[in-house]
Amino acid sequence: MLGKYLDEVRKKTPLVHNITNYVTVNDVANILLACGGSPIMSDEPRDVEDITSICGGLNINIGTLNKRSIKGMKKACRKAQELGHVTLLDPVGAGASALRTETAAQLMEMIRFTVIRGNISEIKALALGSGTTKGVDADIADAVTEDNLDDAVRFVKDFAAKTGAVVAVTGAIDLVADAERCFVIRNGRPEMGRITGTGCQLSGMMTAFVVANPDNALEAAAASVCAMGLAGEIGYSHLASYEGNSTYRNRIIDAICNMDGKCLDEGAKYEVR
Amino acid sequence: MLGKYLDEVRKKTPLVHNITNYVTVNDVANILLACGGSPIMSDEPRDVEDITSICGGLNINIGTLNKRSIKGMKKACRKAQELGHVTLLDPVGAGASALRTETAAQLMEMIRFTVIRGNISEIKALALGSGTTKGVDADIADAVTEDNLDDAVRFVKDFAAKTGAVVAVTGAIDLVADAERCFVIRNGRPEMGRITGTGCQLSGMMTAFVVANPDNALEAAAASVCAMGLAGEIGYSHLASYEGNSTYRNRIIDAICNMDGKCLDEGAKYEVR
Amino acid sequence: MLGKYLDEVRKKTPLVHNITNYVTVNDVANILLACGGSPIMSDEPRDVEDITSICGGLNINIGTLNKRSIKGMKKACRKAQELGHVTLLDPVGAGASALRTETAAQLMEMIRFTVIRGNISEIKALALGSGTTKGVDADIADAVTEDNLDDAVRFVKDFAAKTGAVVAVTGAIDLVADAERCFVIRNGRPEMGRITGTGCQLSGMMTAFVVANPDNALEAAAASVCAMGLAGEIGYSHLASYEGNSTYRNRIIDAICNMDGKCLDEGAKYEVR
Repeated sequence: MLGKYLDEVRKKTPLVHNITNYVTVNDVANILLACGGSPIMSDEPRDVEDITSICGGLNINIGTLNKRSIKGMKKACRKAQELGHVTLLDPVGAGASALRTETAAQLMEMIRFTVIRGNISEIKALALGSGTTKGVDADIADAVTEDNLDDAVRFVKDFAAKTGAVVAVTGAIDLVADAERCFVIRNGRPEMGRITGTGCQLSGMMTAFVVANPDNALEAAAASVCAMGLAGEIGYSHLASYEGNSTYRNRIIDAICNMDGKCLDEGAKYEVR
Repeated sequence: MLGKYLDEVRKKTPLVHNITNYVTVNDVANILLACGGSPIMSDEPRDVEDITSICGGLNINIGTLNKRSIKGMKKACRKAQELGHVTLLDPVGAGASALRTETAAQLMEMIRFTVIRGNISEIKALALGSGTTKGVDADIADAVTEDNLDDAVRFVKDFAAKTGAVVAVTGAIDLVADAERCFVIRNGRPEMGRITGTGCQLSGMMTAFVVANPDNALEAAAASVCAMGLAGEIGYSHLASYEGNSTYRNRIIDAICNMDGKCLDEGAKYEVR
Repeated sequence: MLGKYLDEVRKKTPLVHNITNYVTVNDVANILLACGGSPIMSDEPRDVEDITSICGGLNINIGTLNKRSIKGMKKACRKAQELGHVTLLDPVGAGASALRTETAAQLMEMIRFTVIRGNISEIKALALGSGTTKGVDADIADAVTEDNLDDAVRFVKDFAAKTGAVVAVTGAIDLVADAERCFVIRNGRPEMGRITGTGCQLSGMMTAFVVANPDNALEAAAASVCAMGLAGEIGYSHLASYEGNSTYRNRIIDAICNMDGKCLDEGAKYEVR
């Protein structure tokens, strides 16, 4: 039962330092507040060590990198690791450009991330040094389906074993694994793919879940994935016929805002393999 | 009949590279997804060539310039031109500061843009090297009205001839022209002026329309302008009395999300001069 | 009666230059449009003097500082002071990092701000050179309550006297003071704390109010605080049970969009001490 991991977030109000892209940053802040966390953003190298020191977790998202923010990410990662903080890497667009793939690789060499979360093409780019990322969305050829599920589960567990991180691969079927166990999650709706930044939002929220549940990183990460997918189902149920992706974005964050542990327990759809 | 140009966007899912301001970037991403395109943002000089290479179009918006993003714009423009990609310039605030006016001029000297889209004050600043831009909004003295329409049409055609671009001037009456023909469009609502970034959103969407319809850049650009105006009409019709500009912003993107070619054909209001 | 200060904003459409964080910048732009102002954003040192020159007010928000934007803030502040423009400082996260505390202090040494607006922990950090800022939210230990109200009013008046600025401290009870008089304001709802950027939005709107009412900076600043809190009450009254913080954000901006002076006069809850 995963609901209690959400309840812990609301009890503890974990402060999360986000170095994230400027496209979806506002939604990341609002979903962190919605789930019971508290967001702070800072990417300036001279500011990041102070900021990360007062937080419990660090969410690194490489969606719109620049020279300065890369430097900020490295300083923040080192400091967070030194302090034993939760760290999450969201390798947006890894495989789509050399700078993104290299930056993700450098950060992974520098520290051991608590969690790595991306779509399947991004995670393949990190794991295999190659991939067929189409921009920031996963390539259909890479998609996790019922047919290739066993292979995908093995791949994600292997990558978790190799990196020492909890690895979350999100898509139509979501996989959240450490070296031993993999949560296979079937919440969510396909229409979520027409909203920018649902992945970025999930990464922010997942960081808060893991900070609030330090002894159960795998379960907490899986709980945040179920919560996001369930919010997608609840939000969709309230859409009028004339509403579309922009209102849907708000409804998902709203659904997180109103969700409690009991609701998550009743709506989460997962098995453990 | 312009509806088919929208249908092509949905069929082809054009990938659009946006170097755009951080004020309205989230709405640009969501409207690109709403119309059937796929957005990616990147402004770091070391990243832009890789990113623009995997895209079909490049949307340049000078709303919040900085030294780094200007360098990124120049590298991306050169690469996109070399690859024969669709390029769009949105000269936000040209005429309001020397840096903006100069940067727009430099980019126009460097490459031939497929499309240039702005308000009348910005386009005048580019065409005449002067203008009375009031911040990022057009000056009332410049406005295209029924009274000065013939002159305005001639001005826009002339600027299109001079630049080799399709030129879109948006306002209460929208003009979209090449050297020969000008679409005069009367969709939209005045309340759209109280939402930040409807112009930026249109530029992103217009890039996707032109990428998906490479042999009909003029018609595709005009179709996107009609779609935006029509979405403004549809979105307004669903507003409750207590709703205002923030919800209206969402409703417009929602309306694009639900629009198909048939709806656009029935709602588009234009003549060709 | 404070409603007339809102009416003046709508009459004059003050142009406000914002150097603000990239987290909440879109909401700042939309609330400025909602209240009748006109926003423009620019942080590049080579651009800010031109931009601030065409505006009536300058809104400085240190939420996501970087080296370049700090330089831009300093140039813009000097130019705005030289031109006699309204200037506002929002010291987001002062007390949470050395860079933020120092930057706020440097800007305050450089010019006399017309208004300084922050939460109580941030203002204490500026006033006392220390504070217990928890990230970007005020520490509960610092909160202004009915029990410590007399002390808090004295503190705010003293800081206003020392800085020569109107000082606005917002929280459950809001205080807006110059050296002589303090508006004690009890509008608003606790749920506003779960939306990112209501403070940033208020700072943008407050700048517009003061620009439009140059001879009544204190009253105009107080009017904007009442307007924001009242919008929080009105927006909340329209929320469905399944709606949460993301829709609430829109409803608050919507409520500002629909508010007039009469509505503000009827809903404002304040006393002057």
